[in-house]
Amino acid sequence: MEITKIGEEGVIAIAQKATEVSPGVILGIGDDAAVVEIKGKLLVTTDLLVENIHFKRSYTKPEILGKKALAVNLSDIAAMGGIPRFCLVSLALPKTTEVNFVEGFYQGLKSMAKEYGVTLIGGDTTGAGSEIMVAVTVLGEALEKGVLTRSGAKPGDGVYVSGYLGDSAAGLYLLLKEKLGLLPEEVEKYLISRHLEPEPRLELGQLLCREKFATSTNDLSDGLVKKLQEIARASGVEITINREKIPLSYALLTFCQQFTLKPLDLALHGGEDYELLFTVPAEKEEELFKLDLPLFKIGMVTGYDERGRVKAEDGVVLQDRGFQHF
Amino acid sequence: MEITKIGEEGVIAIAQKATEVSPGVILGIGDDAAVVEIKGKLLVTTDLLVENIHFKRSYTKPEILGKKALAVNLSDIAAMGGIPRFCLVSLALPKTTEVNFVEGFYQGLKSMAKEYGVTLIGGDTTGAGSEIMVAVTVLGEALEKGVLTRSGAKPGDGVYVSGYLGDSAAGLYLLLKEKLGLLPEEVEKYLISRHLEPEPRLELGQLLCREKFATSTNDLSDGLVKKLQEIARASGVEITINREKIPLSYALLTFCQQFTLKPLDLALHGGEDYELLFTVPAEKEEELFKLDLPLFKIGMVTGYDERGRVKAEDGVVLQDRGFQHF
Repeated sequence: MEITKIGEEGVIAIAQKATEVSPGVILGIGDDAAVVEIKGKLLVTTDLLVENIHFKRSYTKPEILGKKALAVNLSDIAAMGGIPRFCLVSLALPKTTEVNFVEGFYQGLKSMAKEYGVTLIGGDTTGAGSEIMVAVTVLGEALEKGVLTRSGAKPGDGVYVSGYLGDSAAGLYLLLKEKLGLLPEEVEKYLISRHLEPEPRLELGQLLCREKFATSTNDLSDGLVKKLQEIARASGVEITINREKIPLSYALLTFCQQFTLKPLDLALHGGEDYELLFTVPAEKEEELFKLDLPLFKIGMVTGYDERGRVKAEDGVVLQDRGFQHF
Repeated sequence: MEITKIGEEGVIAIAQKATEVSPGVILGIGDDAAVVEIKGKLLVTTDLLVENIHFKRSYTKPEILGKKALAVNLSDIAAMGGIPRFCLVSLALPKTTEVNFVEGFYQGLKSMAKEYGVTLIGGDTTGAGSEIMVAVTVLGEALEKGVLTRSGAKPGDGVYVSGYLGDSAAGLYLLLKEKLGLLPEEVEKYLISRHLEPEPRLELGQLLCREKFATSTNDLSDGLVKKLQEIARASGVEITINREKIPLSYALLTFCQQFTLKPLDLALHGGEDYELLFTVPAEKEEELFKLDLPLFKIGMVTGYDERGRVKAEDGVVLQDRGFQHF
């Protein structure tokens, strides 16, 4: 059944099933604006996902899209060390969209919202030409300790990432080029899930903020080099990374062998890994290591630099190649 | 010049020019999330505008689109009796979009933001297939007195609107059907500006809230009948309007004569007037009248009714005809 059969009110009714009674929500979906209460400083972030640019319906189940649309925003809150609280979700839907799609989308969204303590409080629904568009806004609370930004890195800090890089780009490659069934099943599954089902690093972000482990953070929505540049420029520092230290999964190495690609290209420029990138002052590194978290030190802040250059261990200046969308 | 020449960073640089240093903004555009401070309860609303559904580039200058995209959200804040503070603006842009378009859009947005004391704090920019999409989220503060909702109307209340209805639909008709140059110039200009340049009724909304003049409010984004139904259903009341009391502009009457249309059809079902619709308790009506505001009493709340029916003075039950988008 197509959504024109149920109309805007039908779509809103589906969305309403994805919301829950929640402390802090004074007025949820269904009036001109939502009314909520937030303690302390308010964090706000928003992301657009456009069909055929950020996802294709051919390989993205609606549940997965609902989850991912929220996850990419939660990743931004994680990078600020904050606590996500509320979300607004807007959908632009072509007339031929199936009701099943909308139901699946909100089911996925609801499961992710529940997992991370987020309540759906509003949004908008409208028609569209030929492509689905999803706009999500997430509101969160800053910790009392403050927020983590891109601008606090200092010479001497270690540079860290929270997980393997390049997997998501490999998963996207498999989906876009329809190269399925060529790799061992668990390798393929892992790479695709790394692309479609990113896990926002909220606990890690809050830990880094609360214990003052990080002087700067960024989430790896785009490629590593671009994100390193953002920190370097915002902080006015030079960052030197060691290419050999960049964490690469066994799955990525298997994938690259099969398709004759260079793992480092994907890790440096691939994007959408949604891991955290952050800098840690030298005197805090030992304490952080003792926590035995899955963290990888990939380089150092090697000096002040207004241009915010990012270098490799051999002195080569790394440039963002804009591998990603747009 | 097309936007692919300046890339995502170029678009962000244009957006950044539309923002201003402002109290309450701890961190604006340029990090993973914005950080702001809000006093008291937080209002949040969001709207999507899709090209060829909500606007056409052929008749909408980018400045006007920027203004309207913000105005329709401010209208929601007005209907809650709140004070708008911050906005986030996301754009999905086809590759062929001109840089001029983006610059004009943000200029329009900035002028409207300035007029109403709103600061741009974030957003997202991405590519799109063939249609421009605009997603705006506005954050506001509730007055200490509380918020106005759709659910407080009581039997005996008067039903009011804040201005002429149907003008916007007439303006849209002129634009869509390309019927320009047939009406007196000032009539045509007025109707088109009522469609393209709505003025959010923020002062009125705040007055209604502060002085407890209104028991319920709604903004006339859709047609009057639909919006009356929303209040009637949310409040569990029956509303009876007097069709002769619905305020119609001289311009609308001239327009309807020219094109053999019925003014009441446009006023009842046209939508996008962005006036306020509200209910006033009998004992407050005299006090409100004395303020000499441009208000029109169009009916009464005539009883409790779980179904939330809306009738005309002759007992005919009015149905929403879904004249609008979607």
